[in-house]
Amino acid sequence: MSISSFRFPTDIRFGAQAIQLLPKLLQQAQVKRPLLVTDKALAQQPVCLNTIKLLKANGLEPVVYSDAQGNPVASHVTAGVAQYKQSKADSIVMIGGGCAIDVGKAIALMVAHPGDLFDYEDDKPGARPIDQPIPLTIAIPTTAGTGSEVGGSSVISDDKTHQKVIVWSPRLIPRHVIADPELTVSLPKNLTAATGIDALTHNIEAFLAKNFHPICDGIALEGITLVAQNLQRAMEKPDDLKARGNMLLASMMGAIAFQKGLGVTHSCAHSLSTCYDLHHGLANALMIIPCLKFNAEVVPDRFVRMGKAIGLTGSDSQIIAGFFDWLRDLKTKIGIPSSLSAVNVQITDRLISVAVTDACHGNNPRPCSKEDFARLFKEALAGE
Amino acid sequence: MSISSFRFPTDIRFGAQAIQLLPKLLQQAQVKRPLLVTDKALAQQPVCLNTIKLLKANGLEPVVYSDAQGNPVASHVTAGVAQYKQSKADSIVMIGGGCAIDVGKAIALMVAHPGDLFDYEDDKPGARPIDQPIPLTIAIPTTAGTGSEVGGSSVISDDKTHQKVIVWSPRLIPRHVIADPELTVSLPKNLTAATGIDALTHNIEAFLAKNFHPICDGIALEGITLVAQNLQRAMEKPDDLKARGNMLLASMMGAIAFQKGLGVTHSCAHSLSTCYDLHHGLANALMIIPCLKFNAEVVPDRFVRMGKAIGLTGSDSQIIAGFFDWLRDLKTKIGIPSSLSAVNVQITDRLISVAVTDACHGNNPRPCSKEDFARLFKEALAGE
Repeated sequence: MSISSFRFPTDIRFGAQAIQLLPKLLQQAQVKRPLLVTDKALAQQPVCLNTIKLLKANGLEPVVYSDAQGNPVASHVTAGVAQYKQSKADSIVMIGGGCAIDVGKAIALMVAHPGDLFDYEDDKPGARPIDQPIPLTIAIPTTAGTGSEVGGSSVISDDKTHQKVIVWSPRLIPRHVIADPELTVSLPKNLTAATGIDALTHNIEAFLAKNFHPICDGIALEGITLVAQNLQRAMEKPDDLKARGNMLLASMMGAIAFQKGLGVTHSCAHSLSTCYDLHHGLANALMIIPCLKFNAEVVPDRFVRMGKAIGLTGSDSQIIAGFFDWLRDLKTKIGIPSSLSAVNVQITDRLISVAVTDACHGNNPRPCSKEDFARLFKEALAGE
Repeated sequence: MSISSFRFPTDIRFGAQAIQLLPKLLQQAQVKRPLLVTDKALAQQPVCLNTIKLLKANGLEPVVYSDAQGNPVASHVTAGVAQYKQSKADSIVMIGGGCAIDVGKAIALMVAHPGDLFDYEDDKPGARPIDQPIPLTIAIPTTAGTGSEVGGSSVISDDKTHQKVIVWSPRLIPRHVIADPELTVSLPKNLTAATGIDALTHNIEAFLAKNFHPICDGIALEGITLVAQNLQRAMEKPDDLKARGNMLLASMMGAIAFQKGLGVTHSCAHSLSTCYDLHHGLANALMIIPCLKFNAEVVPDRFVRMGKAIGLTGSDSQIIAGFFDWLRDLKTKIGIPSSLSAVNVQITDRLISVAVTDACHGNNPRPCSKEDFARLFKEALAGE
C-alpha cells in the first residue's frame, strides 16, 4: 500500500443568479480593480457585458482583457500580464470556457513570479517553484466541460510548435467559483456537445485511472450519471436550467475527479489539438470509443460499474456492450462527427509521437505503446 | 434553484506507514512543541507511545494531554488549553477517535479566541465569531467512524447537562490528516463495529439529506459501497490492512459527504448520548433501521440507488427490502445488540425532547415530529 495525497478544491457558489454574488466576493477580499479575462468571442456577448455592468454598479472598476481564443498560447498570457500591470489591476475574474480560465490562471501566476511561463512547466526537471502568493482569482464558467474552474492547472500552448504545456500548483486553484447555469444557456449547440463530452471523458478517464482514490471514484461515477441524464436534454432544451446546472456540476466533478489521473483519450486529444488545433472536447469525443475499448479489455469490472451507474442491467458482458452502445448513440444524437476523417485529420508520425510523449496516459489502466497509439488513431479515423 | 456552497476539506495522507510523515509535516510548518491530544485509554498504547518516540527521534518535543474520554465535556477542553499554554506548545497533533480529535480542535480554537467554548456554538444567535488564525492541527484517526479528522466541527458536551454542543468553522478543519490503517488494527472488535456503523450512517444520512449536493452524493454512495465490502472483513481479520484502509476512507468520505446534511438517526443518537452517555456509533447502530424505514417511505428512489450501489438487483421494491435485509444482517454479524432495551435505555420525555431540538434532522428528507421521534424510539426499543 503506497501513500497517496488527496486534495479537494475551492469554494463553489452554484445556482441560477449566483453571478449576483460576484461584487460581494470581490468587496469581501477588499479588491477594486479586477482584470476580467475572457475570450474574443465572449467579450461582446451579454454574459460579459452584463457582468461588467454589475461590477460597475457596485463601485468596482473592471478592466477587460480578451485577446485569447481557441487553444490559448503563451503570448496571450504575456499580453494579459502587461495589461494587468498597466491598468493597476488587483485581482482576476475569469469568464468563459477553458481558454479564458486557463489564461486567467496563468496571468495570476506570472504577475507574481519571475521568468517565463514555461519555466513553471509541471514536472519539468529544474522547473521554477510556484511559491509566491498570487492575486485573488474568481472563475465563472460559461461552458460545462473543462472544469478548469476547480482545478490547479493551466494548459497553454507554445506559440510556434503549438505543443501544450501544463503548469500546475494548488495556488492556481481559483479562490471562488461562480457556477451559474443561466450563463451557459446561450452556448451554441456544437459547443454544448463538445464540452459535454469533455466533461464525460474527464469523469470516465478519472474513474478508470490506475491510481487509488475512492473519493474521486465516487465523484466520477456520479458525474457520469449526471451526463447520462442531462447532456442530451441540455442540447434539446438549451434553456433548461436544471439540465444546464447538472452539466455544470458534472463538469466540475470531472475536473475534481481527475486529480486521480486521466488516460489515453486525453493523450490522443492533446496531440490532435497540437497538430490540428482541434477543439479539446471535440478531440476527446472523436477518440473516446477506440480508447475506451482498448481499456475495457483490461478493466472490464470498471466498465460494469459505469454501466450500472447509468442504469444498465444484465450480465457483465451485456452491460459492457450496452455502455458502448450508449456512448455511440449519445455521440450521434448530439451531432459529433463519426470519425477523424470527417475533420480532415491525417495520421502522421508527429501526431503519434506527441501523443506518446503526453503525460496523461501515465495513469491509464493499460500501458499504451507507440504502436497502440497508431492503432487507436487508425480506428478513430475509420470511425470507431 | 437556490444558491449552494460547496466546500472540500484538507490534505489527506493515506496508507500504511503514513505516520512516518508526521515529523516532516511539523518541521515544514516550523513548529517544534506539538500538544499531542489523545484519550485516556490510548495514552499508554503503542500507537501513542510509538508516535512520541518518532517525534522525539526527529528532534521534536511533544507534550501529551490525555484527560478526555468517552463523550468529551467542556472541562476537558479547558484543561487542554491550560496545558497548551503552560507547556508553551506551538501546534496540536490529535491521535484517536472522535473524542481526541474533537477535543484537539476545540483546544486549538480556544487558545486563539477569548471567552468560553460554548460562546462559539454553531448557529446560536449572538455567537462569537471564529475569526482568528488557530495553531496548526494534524489529525491521526485510530478509529474508522467519526471522520472528524476531515471536518470543521467539534462536538463537546456540557459537563452538567451532557447536552452536546456543536462548534463549527472551516478554520477547525485539520491542516493535515494522516490516515494510516496500521494504527487501526488494534481497535477492539466492539469499537470496530460501532465506529464502522457510524461511518455507514454518515454516508447514508448524507446521501438521503434533502440538500442539493451531487458531489457529496457521489462520495456517499461510494462510501456505502466501501463499508458493504469491508466492514465485516475488518471484524473477521483485524489486521487486514486493505479492509482497514478502506474503512478509514469510508469514514472520511462519510464526514466529507455530511457537509450536505444528516438526518433523524443522528438526532436520536445525539439524544441517546446526552441522556445515557451511549457511544455515538453504537447509538446510531441501534437507531438506524427504524429511522431509515421512516425515510424509505418518502424517498424510495434513493434507497434503490443505495441498494444498487451495494450490488442488489431485482425490482425496486425487492432492492429496498434487500437493503434492509442487508443492514439487519450486517448488524447481527458484527455483534450490535438487537434493541435499545439491551443497553438499558428507557424512553423518557427528555430523550424525545433532546432529539426534537437536535439540529441534524433539519436536513432529513421527511419532517419528523415529536410523535414521530417517540415512535422511532419505541420501534428501536422493541428491536427493529
